[in-house]
Amino acid sequence: MKLASLMHGRDGRLVVVSRDLTRATDAFPVVATLQAALDDWERHAPRLADLAEGLEHGSVPSFRFHEHDCASPLPRAFQWLDASAYVNHVALVRQARGAEMPEGFWTDPLMYQGGSDSSLGPRQPIRARNEEDGIDFEAEVAVVTGDVPMGVGADAALSHIRLVMLANDVSLRTLIARELPKGFGFVQSKPSSAFSPVAVTPDELGASWQGGRLSGAVLSQLNGQPFGGPDAGIDMTFDFGTLIAHAASTRPLSAGTIIGSGTVSNRDADGGPGKPVAEGGLGYACIAEQRMVETIRSGGPVTPFLRFGDTVRIEMKDAEGRSIFGAIEQDVLPHVD
Amino acid sequence: MKLASLMHGRDGRLVVVSRDLTRATDAFPVVATLQAALDDWERHAPRLADLAEGLEHGSVPSFRFHEHDCASPLPRAFQWLDASAYVNHVALVRQARGAEMPEGFWTDPLMYQGGSDSSLGPRQPIRARNEEDGIDFEAEVAVVTGDVPMGVGADAALSHIRLVMLANDVSLRTLIARELPKGFGFVQSKPSSAFSPVAVTPDELGASWQGGRLSGAVLSQLNGQPFGGPDAGIDMTFDFGTLIAHAASTRPLSAGTIIGSGTVSNRDADGGPGKPVAEGGLGYACIAEQRMVETIRSGGPVTPFLRFGDTVRIEMKDAEGRSIFGAIEQDVLPHVD
Repeated sequence: MKLASLMHGRDGRLVVVSRDLTRATDAFPVVATLQAALDDWERHAPRLADLAEGLEHGSVPSFRFHEHDCASPLPRAFQWLDASAYVNHVALVRQARGAEMPEGFWTDPLMYQGGSDSSLGPRQPIRARNEEDGIDFEAEVAVVTGDVPMGVGADAALSHIRLVMLANDVSLRTLIARELPKGFGFVQSKPSSAFSPVAVTPDELGASWQGGRLSGAVLSQLNGQPFGGPDAGIDMTFDFGTLIAHAASTRPLSAGTIIGSGTVSNRDADGGPGKPVAEGGLGYACIAEQRMVETIRSGGPVTPFLRFGDTVRIEMKDAEGRSIFGAIEQDVLPHVD
Repeated sequence: MKLASLMHGRDGRLVVVSRDLTRATDAFPVVATLQAALDDWERHAPRLADLAEGLEHGSVPSFRFHEHDCASPLPRAFQWLDASAYVNHVALVRQARGAEMPEGFWTDPLMYQGGSDSSLGPRQPIRARNEEDGIDFEAEVAVVTGDVPMGVGADAALSHIRLVMLANDVSLRTLIARELPKGFGFVQSKPSSAFSPVAVTPDELGASWQGGRLSGAVLSQLNGQPFGGPDAGIDMTFDFGTLIAHAASTRPLSAGTIIGSGTVSNRDADGGPGKPVAEGGLGYACIAEQRMVETIRSGGPVTPFLRFGDTVRIEMKDAEGRSIFGAIEQDVLPHVD
């Protein structure tokens, strides 16, 4: 089943969306918001699934679904933990700045606690103070969990995944360079993230969801031009079960927790860093990675970070070329008081 | 006015509490939960204040208030940002491990994004995997904000503070030593925090709330013995307005955001590290600080971290010796599956 939250109040208005993303039906007869659905999933999910089936058969009232009416599936969430599961990306960061990568990064997930009190809708602009902050997108896969007990194992953790979606983890690279050395993670350098219009249950994803990994190219476009399409199912060192178990090691996670994969990143076929799209490569899921590859190859970055007026689009398509989660498409604009 | 959330469902049941913490009245006729009150504070606060006045005059139905029935005021919150505003504490950490402290720490607040999806009630036990994780308490002051616009200044930020409370920011010191070098902040090393039974509006605090700082001794007890009583109004390098402005520099904060002061810490009268209570000093708001002072003085720590069966109590009293926020009192117990 596919779920979305139309913009409405602080928590959105839950709708069930058709597989092809053309029509929706109000979930209100069952439950008003996605957070409320997750709070009591065992009770609500079967009735939401009935609505989804009715929608496919045309047996429930429906209306045209517009992605631009959507908030993020959880417009505000009680938790957002974002990992760096594609360790290839981390290795490139380190290589580009000539730093060694601790061996433990291949076995112990990197994860940070991010802000989730006001996520951006998938078509809402990224508002930044100035271009010098180094505005970047990060195309990711994210899952939403139910209640997860403290100490859960990686395999058991998979059963607590309720929904899968895409994320744009907006990053301010200049601020990251200043903030990370302070040692307390990201606060100013990671403003509000945006999530795909539609969140999808794992069963709906068929064979592309396996072993806690989602397969398929995460397609990023910058100003209408392809920027990258690395496959989320490849080079993901830690699957979502392992990431959830890492997060729940010393505390329970409550329903509606969002766990992100970190920037999707694939190695090139020869095992080295991926090549830019312009050279026939798979490209990248963030500008920083393209700049790192440029630095490794030629001593310095060439591609600029995002500028005011730029547009970023993030999407994933199924084997028939149909959008699975709808598209995140955000303009970059100056913050106005 | 004083507010509390009695344990009930995921978000508690909001009650208005009498000044002396002996009686309460149900807030339900106005609004059911504290989060809902914060979501529309301008509308609800005046009516909650009416209930508070009625409670003092005995003109509204009331019942006996028991602190042990309380959840944290926000049992789950959309955001918890904890600072290290008592830079003296940070300086001691550094001094104890022989590391230099960057000069910028006196002008640029340290702050981390913490988990707030499942805060502990003020009388709920701290459940840990094992004692070797280095279980510690941190007695802090915390504020709850309304909606804060991005880019707010430090002075203007003060007007967005809705409530003040105490916090126990539970820390796993052994895990901190392993996690912080990874560079992404705290995930496993900061399990659920607990907050005082009662949250208090700034106007109710009178002269003890001034310039974004709360004055008064934060009293910690370990197993019924005084452990420390540093004054929260002294040596707080960054006031709450500055902390909120730091957090809102690149993004808005939504209603119900909790901002913590970090471990309260006072210098000794001679300007050096504070002395233990046993030596007539003000003592400390966490065990780690006592251990750091022991290390600085004699080359190694003596006081152990918390052990299963230990009890921690955190409280603040007014000039007449009456508890302002009620007490956080938590047993330390092993986690059971």
